[in-house]
Amino acid sequence: MLIGLQYTLAQQTRTEKDLLGEKQIPADAYYGVQTLRALENFQISGVKTNFYPDYVKAYAIVKLAAARANTEVGRMKKERMDAIEKACQAVIGGKYHDQFLTDLYQGGAGTSANMNANEVLANIALEMGGHKKGEYQFIEPHDDLNMGQSTNDVYPTAIHIVLILHNDKVIKEAELLAQAFHKKGEEFKNLVKMGRTEGQDAVPMTLGQEFHAFGSQIDAAIDALRKSEAYLYEVNMGATAIGTGLTASPGYAEKCVAQLAKLTGKPIVGPKDLIAATSSMQAFVMFSSAYKNLAVTLSKISSDLIFLASGPRNGIFEINLPALQPGSSIMPGKVNPVMPEVMNQVCYKAMGNDATVAIASRDGLLQLNAYEPVVATSIMESQALFYKLMPLFRKNCIDGITANEKVLKHYLETTVGIVTALNPVLGYEKTTELAKEALQSGKGILELIREKKLLTEDQIKKLMDPAALTGQKL
Amino acid sequence: MLIGLQYTLAQQTRTEKDLLGEKQIPADAYYGVQTLRALENFQISGVKTNFYPDYVKAYAIVKLAAARANTEVGRMKKERMDAIEKACQAVIGGKYHDQFLTDLYQGGAGTSANMNANEVLANIALEMGGHKKGEYQFIEPHDDLNMGQSTNDVYPTAIHIVLILHNDKVIKEAELLAQAFHKKGEEFKNLVKMGRTEGQDAVPMTLGQEFHAFGSQIDAAIDALRKSEAYLYEVNMGATAIGTGLTASPGYAEKCVAQLAKLTGKPIVGPKDLIAATSSMQAFVMFSSAYKNLAVTLSKISSDLIFLASGPRNGIFEINLPALQPGSSIMPGKVNPVMPEVMNQVCYKAMGNDATVAIASRDGLLQLNAYEPVVATSIMESQALFYKLMPLFRKNCIDGITANEKVLKHYLETTVGIVTALNPVLGYEKTTELAKEALQSGKGILELIREKKLLTEDQIKKLMDPAALTGQKL
Amino acid sequence: MLIGLQYTLAQQTRTEKDLLGEKQIPADAYYGVQTLRALENFQISGVKTNFYPDYVKAYAIVKLAAARANTEVGRMKKERMDAIEKACQAVIGGKYHDQFLTDLYQGGAGTSANMNANEVLANIALEMGGHKKGEYQFIEPHDDLNMGQSTNDVYPTAIHIVLILHNDKVIKEAELLAQAFHKKGEEFKNLVKMGRTEGQDAVPMTLGQEFHAFGSQIDAAIDALRKSEAYLYEVNMGATAIGTGLTASPGYAEKCVAQLAKLTGKPIVGPKDLIAATSSMQAFVMFSSAYKNLAVTLSKISSDLIFLASGPRNGIFEINLPALQPGSSIMPGKVNPVMPEVMNQVCYKAMGNDATVAIASRDGLLQLNAYEPVVATSIMESQALFYKLMPLFRKNCIDGITANEKVLKHYLETTVGIVTALNPVLGYEKTTELAKEALQSGKGILELIREKKLLTEDQIKKLMDPAALTGQKL
Amino acid sequence: MLIGLQYTLAQQTRTEKDLLGEKQIPADAYYGVQTLRALENFQISGVKTNFYPDYVKAYAIVKLAAARANTEVGRMKKERMDAIEKACQAVIGGKYHDQFLTDLYQGGAGTSANMNANEVLANIALEMGGHKKGEYQFIEPHDDLNMGQSTNDVYPTAIHIVLILHNDKVIKEAELLAQAFHKKGEEFKNLVKMGRTEGQDAVPMTLGQEFHAFGSQIDAAIDALRKSEAYLYEVNMGATAIGTGLTASPGYAEKCVAQLAKLTGKPIVGPKDLIAATSSMQAFVMFSSAYKNLAVTLSKISSDLIFLASGPRNGIFEINLPALQPGSSIMPGKVNPVMPEVMNQVCYKAMGNDATVAIASRDGLLQLNAYEPVVATSIMESQALFYKLMPLFRKNCIDGITANEKVLKHYLETTVGIVTALNPVLGYEKTTELAKEALQSGKGILELIREKKLLTEDQIKKLMDPAALTGQKL
Repeated sequence: MLIGLQYTLAQQTRTEKDLLGEKQIPADAYYGVQTLRALENFQISGVKTNFYPDYVKAYAIVKLAAARANTEVGRMKKERMDAIEKACQAVIGGKYHDQFLTDLYQGGAGTSANMNANEVLANIALEMGGHKKGEYQFIEPHDDLNMGQSTNDVYPTAIHIVLILHNDKVIKEAELLAQAFHKKGEEFKNLVKMGRTEGQDAVPMTLGQEFHAFGSQIDAAIDALRKSEAYLYEVNMGATAIGTGLTASPGYAEKCVAQLAKLTGKPIVGPKDLIAATSSMQAFVMFSSAYKNLAVTLSKISSDLIFLASGPRNGIFEINLPALQPGSSIMPGKVNPVMPEVMNQVCYKAMGNDATVAIASRDGLLQLNAYEPVVATSIMESQALFYKLMPLFRKNCIDGITANEKVLKHYLETTVGIVTALNPVLGYEKTTELAKEALQSGKGILELIREKKLLTEDQIKKLMDPAALTGQKL
Repeated sequence: MLIGLQYTLAQQTRTEKDLLGEKQIPADAYYGVQTLRALENFQISGVKTNFYPDYVKAYAIVKLAAARANTEVGRMKKERMDAIEKACQAVIGGKYHDQFLTDLYQGGAGTSANMNANEVLANIALEMGGHKKGEYQFIEPHDDLNMGQSTNDVYPTAIHIVLILHNDKVIKEAELLAQAFHKKGEEFKNLVKMGRTEGQDAVPMTLGQEFHAFGSQIDAAIDALRKSEAYLYEVNMGATAIGTGLTASPGYAEKCVAQLAKLTGKPIVGPKDLIAATSSMQAFVMFSSAYKNLAVTLSKISSDLIFLASGPRNGIFEINLPALQPGSSIMPGKVNPVMPEVMNQVCYKAMGNDATVAIASRDGLLQLNAYEPVVATSIMESQALFYKLMPLFRKNCIDGITANEKVLKHYLETTVGIVTALNPVLGYEKTTELAKEALQSGKGILELIREKKLLTEDQIKKLMDPAALTGQKL
Repeated sequence: MLIGLQYTLAQQTRTEKDLLGEKQIPADAYYGVQTLRALENFQISGVKTNFYPDYVKAYAIVKLAAARANTEVGRMKKERMDAIEKACQAVIGGKYHDQFLTDLYQGGAGTSANMNANEVLANIALEMGGHKKGEYQFIEPHDDLNMGQSTNDVYPTAIHIVLILHNDKVIKEAELLAQAFHKKGEEFKNLVKMGRTEGQDAVPMTLGQEFHAFGSQIDAAIDALRKSEAYLYEVNMGATAIGTGLTASPGYAEKCVAQLAKLTGKPIVGPKDLIAATSSMQAFVMFSSAYKNLAVTLSKISSDLIFLASGPRNGIFEINLPALQPGSSIMPGKVNPVMPEVMNQVCYKAMGNDATVAIASRDGLLQLNAYEPVVATSIMESQALFYKLMPLFRKNCIDGITANEKVLKHYLETTVGIVTALNPVLGYEKTTELAKEALQSGKGILELIREKKLLTEDQIKKLMDPAALTGQKL
Repeated sequence: MLIGLQYTLAQQTRTEKDLLGEKQIPADAYYGVQTLRALENFQISGVKTNFYPDYVKAYAIVKLAAARANTEVGRMKKERMDAIEKACQAVIGGKYHDQFLTDLYQGGAGTSANMNANEVLANIALEMGGHKKGEYQFIEPHDDLNMGQSTNDVYPTAIHIVLILHNDKVIKEAELLAQAFHKKGEEFKNLVKMGRTEGQDAVPMTLGQEFHAFGSQIDAAIDALRKSEAYLYEVNMGATAIGTGLTASPGYAEKCVAQLAKLTGKPIVGPKDLIAATSSMQAFVMFSSAYKNLAVTLSKISSDLIFLASGPRNGIFEINLPALQPGSSIMPGKVNPVMPEVMNQVCYKAMGNDATVAIASRDGLLQLNAYEPVVATSIMESQALFYKLMPLFRKNCIDGITANEKVLKHYLETTVGIVTALNPVLGYEKTTELAKEALQSGKGILELIREKKLLTEDQIKKLMDPAALTGQKL
């Protein structure tokens, strides 16, 4: 069978060559010799460029912007430009993604991924222009698709763009999630309960305030995602190999970033120092940190939900999470907080990914950091985990949360925590004694106040008003 | 079309139910209702149990050991045992892996993965025994496949086992890699060169010693992998839900770990304190650390290779790495150290994964850590990256390394570093002055010694003998 | 002797009490009973509040702002205000710092540190007002110094402020450091050299560009420090225990943050959601990330300097770092890159500290994160390491760097990397062949071009113009 | 006054010189010129060698072992040996520690710390032998104290030894802590309660089992500390600069490690490959990981204690932690779990320190890792935090824990979790229905069983026997 296979292949290949020699390429492949070498050299994670469709699109966007800019400065001919435009638009539209095949892990600082894009787009353009694949005399992967470019500007720019595209998705889902919490905040706004600090009874609040605070924390994390996206707006197109712009035409860099801004609808700009921008990974470090922050935030909220929903009989049990699956293979009737649990896991992974980003960004010798691929794959992974999980988390968990009003009320009635409200009237020392007596005797605070006639009923009523206690209108 | 699809499905499903209600299961599916819920609830990473075949095998091994143990203590009937044995052996043999479908990220501490295994193995056993899928009155996923078990002992045990199986693969490849370095060590054993500390010329050594030292560092990392594997030998089968063994039969736990030892060929044992073992993740933390150590080691070596191979004209250039691909999309003729670069990336990811493991292991409330899935997926990912990359790294890089003898010789002849060898004869102060004079004048150390008649030619010859300088026979 | 000591102490103490009972306080101590308990409970790191003078100042600033705000809303009497103002100003001026003694590690979410401030400032105010220490009937640590406050708003606010004060110091030093690099950039602006990517010869640049790029990377890191400082401007004064503002007077919160803005000269504001702000640590996570980014940046630069200065005979040796100490206890004449080495170490510590911040910030139950102390100490440590080391690094290393012009020139003359400049004229395939031939034959690129008459002398001159090659005016 | 000071100094100095020139040393200083340079170059963290007395001792132990070995191989004269022996013994005995002054952060891979030791010990030996400080013609810091040595073997060896000495302290305290938990385990062994998984009611256990499990987890962490200590037993004395042993006498290496074994009472040995051992940091990586594991373990336990002690009215409140301080500056009567909180903080710091160790260990060029100082200071910091905090945690928290028996009983009586015990008799499906009905109706499980006559009273009694439920004798 192997013989037959070889025979078949022999009939269906075309020959391409590079610095290292000739290779046979499958005839129907849009990719070329350098992609083939990469497929042979790097079978590592099994995750390829096209695992993230936005990543494929990002290459097409970059190559289109470069071709347009090269045309504007008079270096690329209109015809070639047109063919390349069509090819790029097709890929942006979702076609040919099966040809973007290099493993996300690769040596060479992304050369394989860039050449994969160059080869595939060249062959698509050739075909669309009536030529055969491999007829590079008409459109050449290096000289045309990589004109005035280098992996060292294309690759980081493509990554900036996919991270920005993914960020839009994450922010959209995070906003819906925040809204879901705020909606619960409204639903629960009249349910007074005891707040807790350090696991101990603190002072009153409403369950609505608690859920609004979850929503507000996500709002803040979204704000950080947006602010950190700004670090990605600066791209180094025009740098070519090391930032000196060697082989790029005058004026090309400015026009290229302008095209990128147009194609993405984002304020893409060039950096002040192209050499620094080419060697530094700070934009990734800062952007990744906002994902670490999202992870810290969603994980904190998830653990809080697990605490509040603990029970049903031996826990806090202030709220119920929707039951999604039987909770246990051994304990009948058990229902577990599976959604916050899986969210925590995604958060821990995102935190580890941020560590990877920092370690990889610190390394990188002189004019280039060859570890961008692992930086890219780590951030993309965190983004995808979040934008896939957040809607499930929202619909299957947050939206269905209900309150156990009796439990909330019981805690409020038995606590000594309301003693704090008396501080301004009685002073800290006196209220401390009251609290101590209440804890030791098992009596309630108001009971003691009345016994000792420390306050009038009017004073008590005013101080114990739920709106006053929780600092909001109820 | 959707209507047609539903119609089709309606004809080809069977009905199963659980605590939450009924579900329609595809008729040809070996999995059941709980797996289906998991598929609906957790579409997160896209990576499933069967991404790692050894992980599927691990479940079959655990379930087989449990069934045998239950039979030995007289709780499971021989017939059921036989059917389950067959089903497990089929899966161990590589069959039915397409049915192990739960996402590696999941809430519920692995309940979905465990139930997936219970359901699939039950239905395989049913079919093999002449029954139809879903006829659980003959073999039941909970009562038979999960007999005397809980996710809380099955899941961590299955993970222990897949990590051990993967560790064998990693160690095997690491040994071959270490050997490849040692082989180069022998090949280069007569090439004297200058060692470097802090990037500065230090004292002489051979290139062989340098490569043997790379090999020895990997040897040490392998030793740590082996020693850390021992932490995984302790498994908590028999713990059931929290370590008290509720629902497990007397004697079952001991027999089950004995079966696991037999099936894996590893010294699997039970823990002293089943409750502690069920709640603690220390075995994972310690095992993962050995992978962090492997990452630290291979990354250090990779960066050293990049340094030694830097050039060709403007670098250290003591060695050549094989050219695997044209190095650049812009710089013709450039050949990059792509294999050490991608190895570094894998190492950074493994370091981030170790961070994830620690953070997830620290959390986990009271009797169970529900974050085991992310611990498992993180360590498995690191293992797979290593066992896939190491052979490529070895064959495509290390095996083909050649030395630039002229360069080595040139460095040795021009250095002042050999002055250290004169310390015992001339004293530190005198040799310091010599070194200073050599650096300032550009003269060689021996030239100065002869000028100043500090040593006889015999003394010089003896001190400058390569074997003496490098501390080894040449 | 112990007896005598006790006797002495007995004579020189005053008695204070709290919820847990009475304690004897040294008579000359400005701190009180709660500080004393903290000193007994937490002797952990040996590093105290006053290890960072700005941290002590931060407490005085917060307490002063609160007192002024309480006075403005009519709750605090003018006299008490005046006494507290004087006490706070004295501490801001650098006095009484020896009384701020609680260990930076403490349980209780900073209660000890806050009470230490309350007690010390109360007693200073008492003394300044003609009272004795401990006469709390005139000015009380809780009721006056903590009026309308809680540890849960005071402590994080004080930390925000010290981090901002430290950030000013770090930015100042970072700016001087960036300038030092840019100055070298100017000094070296005409020294053409070969750039390197992935350790391999790339294309030409100037040493000046290389040093400007170091400076620009620090500029970018400073930009991130500034932007991240903005996260700290939002403080939760007025939140009191959990964000509901219980015990704070209406209008107090707004006036307090306005006072903080006035006292610090920074745009301090209150948050939209006080409850969220009190429970969330995102400001610290994002701010700490900018220090991680600074660490990544300075470490990358340090490692580049070590590479460029490697030698003297067996390394790259393009630059010389000043010699600060004999480099070796065994190798005479060796001079090591000690300053970049110690900078790397500080950077690694700062990266680890950022990991600590994230882990601690993720935890923290419901309305409060009790792990703020370790977050604070970790960030403060990183800041101090940077602001102490950066001036040494600048003065003892960067300012004294010199270039080895001969080495730079030699590399430039021997490289094949300039072949890239010929791409636009000859095409990638042709230049690749040239590069290959040059590498194999040992000939120079221009030599081959002339041999093969591929270009005219005019073309060569134009293409090989240093200004054109490096993309800048020389 | 400054003038006076300078005048005074001028009179009280001696002159020393090195490669870089002459310096004035304070006349009463035992340290010399190289220490002085280090004091000038590295004022960074403010933490010095003598912050850890065991670290000072470690240097004296190494120098003594080296001197003895040099004497045994006939290279050092008996008289010098005797003087050095006395000096080292004095330092081991706790004297002269104020002379060990180099900052823990230092460039040069520890050269300053090593030279500080060489200079101080030389001058002590000189004085003890009747000479003056600085009369190095009798005993010389390099030629005698550093005979056959290099910073590159002395420094890592000294760190190995201090880490081992510290490990003894940590293990001792960890053992006492584990015992304290086990003692509580015995005290609470008859208190039946409900176990919890994923925050949800699981199955019965005793509070004693829960505390024994805490103790057992610490036992396991101690086991890992011990096993990881073994990585430190291999030291590279005899390697000198890079592992080739240049300047060391034949036989010296073996005798030196034998002396170290004798002086420390630990099985210190030499490595198989001295070059690998000199460049690799794996021993630190693996040892540090065991401290990360201790952190993960103690943090998990601390968070569990906070959960179990939450309340008093609105939490789980199964146990009481001793009150150590008033819990709040605003909430009277509040008592917080301050000891577990501060333990968590120390654990988070230790986790960050482990990250630092890994990052620093990954770096390090070729024959030496110059980042050992930050590795050393990070691990030593974690060790000291643990050995200082653990006794406070034990005495002020664990020893005083009491159980709230009524609460435990109440939870047990109301739970549906005991339904699991009925699985083996009724089957998973039937018990699931029972659990569902109980949860919906609010009825107890046994109540339903009796209603439905599913079991006889005898069966019930047997199944509900506390000993059977918890799997232990009560």
